[in-house]
Amino acid sequence: MSFRASVLTLYPDMFPGPLGLSLAGRALGEGTWTLDATNIRDFATDKHRSVDDTPAGGGAGMVLKPDVLAAALDSVADGRPMLAMTPRGAPLTQGRVRELAAGEGAIILCGRFEGFDERIFEARALEPVSVGDYILSGGELPAMILLDACVRLLPGVMGAASSGEDESFETGLLEYPHYTRPVDWEGRTIPEVLRSGDHAKIAAWRHARAMEDTRLRRPDLIERHGGASQAPPSGARRKR
Amino acid sequence: MSFRASVLTLYPDMFPGPLGLSLAGRALGEGTWTLDATNIRDFATDKHRSVDDTPAGGGAGMVLKPDVLAAALDSVADGRPMLAMTPRGAPLTQGRVRELAAGEGAIILCGRFEGFDERIFEARALEPVSVGDYILSGGELPAMILLDACVRLLPGVMGAASSGEDESFETGLLEYPHYTRPVDWEGRTIPEVLRSGDHAKIAAWRHARAMEDTRLRRPDLIERHGGASQAPPSGARRKR
Repeated sequence: MSFRASVLTLYPDMFPGPLGLSLAGRALGEGTWTLDATNIRDFATDKHRSVDDTPAGGGAGMVLKPDVLAAALDSVADGRPMLAMTPRGAPLTQGRVRELAAGEGAIILCGRFEGFDERIFEARALEPVSVGDYILSGGELPAMILLDACVRLLPGVMGAASSGEDESFETGLLEYPHYTRPVDWEGRTIPEVLRSGDHAKIAAWRHARAMEDTRLRRPDLIERHGGASQAPPSGARRKR
Repeated sequence: MSFRASVLTLYPDMFPGPLGLSLAGRALGEGTWTLDATNIRDFATDKHRSVDDTPAGGGAGMVLKPDVLAAALDSVADGRPMLAMTPRGAPLTQGRVRELAAGEGAIILCGRFEGFDERIFEARALEPVSVGDYILSGGELPAMILLDACVRLLPGVMGAASSGEDESFETGLLEYPHYTRPVDWEGRTIPEVLRSGDHAKIAAWRHARAMEDTRLRRPDLIERHGGASQAPPSGARRKR
């Protein structure tokens, strides 16, 4: 069974866009997942095809109307999780990506303007999701981010090339740094341990670097995971 | 002077993609910003046009070669900030977006496979940037996210429609919820205060809701800002 993605947007022409190329595009072509993009404007009910209106209480910008959003959602709802991309949402995590990728697919609502009428979230059990602490012009790129993250985890997509299990966040830490040839480049050399052939030493060095970089760059990750991920490396943690 | 974006990628055909439509696309058409996408593969030096090699120390996947990356970067380097999209980077913030948008532009390196040879970061003063705590198939969507966030802040792009200053993260808090007509929808009504016409009350309610939602959904934002953003709302904080 394919992973089925339905996107609700005012810019259906943006899809598949980047998702039609490379890893996600190949998987789309092979039927590993499906994608349909529906124009929210098709669910407007007035002669001007309005999808938005001024904010109650005043202020700049326009707010997407709950009745139009609900009609658009109802047209594709079939039990798949329904998510809305908004900076007010819960930050997307690799854990949530894994859950979604293991399911039937997702229905993703993309906002524009000032955002959604708040009532839609409760009325349709919409999950608000944020891809990061910055403001974009719309939810389309975040929807693509969410889908790309899910699709690469679908069976057969990454293949044997990468198990993905050592990537940043999969272990609760940032991934260790990578090096490749040339060994000496502009006077900078690959750390000697990586050239030693000693797999236990290499695994220990990588774990130490992952810990060190996480502590320096992302102490919040270590606090959040409460040290649960700080176990020493085992064979199972090494890449296959 | 335009904001100039140069993207280095193995998939130049992904650009402008979604950035060619809507707000960013209009601004691109009007010359408010420029975008060029360069294929990293054009800087390969062997007959197979190799851009990657196996990781030193073993493991799955392939690592982008430092010499090829450096040649690609050097071909566009002109003093603009150089960023590499990687989950090992510092999380992108709205503050960093504002800084970048106020500058001449950006050079953005997009990774694929297992990532970059680590030496490139020091050798070329590359700033590692992460758009969020999840793993993607490449840096192209993150580059688009970064550019979309910058472009909407360029003079004239958002116009008078929205000052953007009340958006989530601009104040250190999530934005308050929005509502619009109909007042009564599926038995759910717009909060009465928003229909009161009392601007001081509305501002106070919005600030209280922004605080409450941030506390419930993103306590990390309040901890990080140490309460600096918890001042009561002033006229200047209201949307214009």
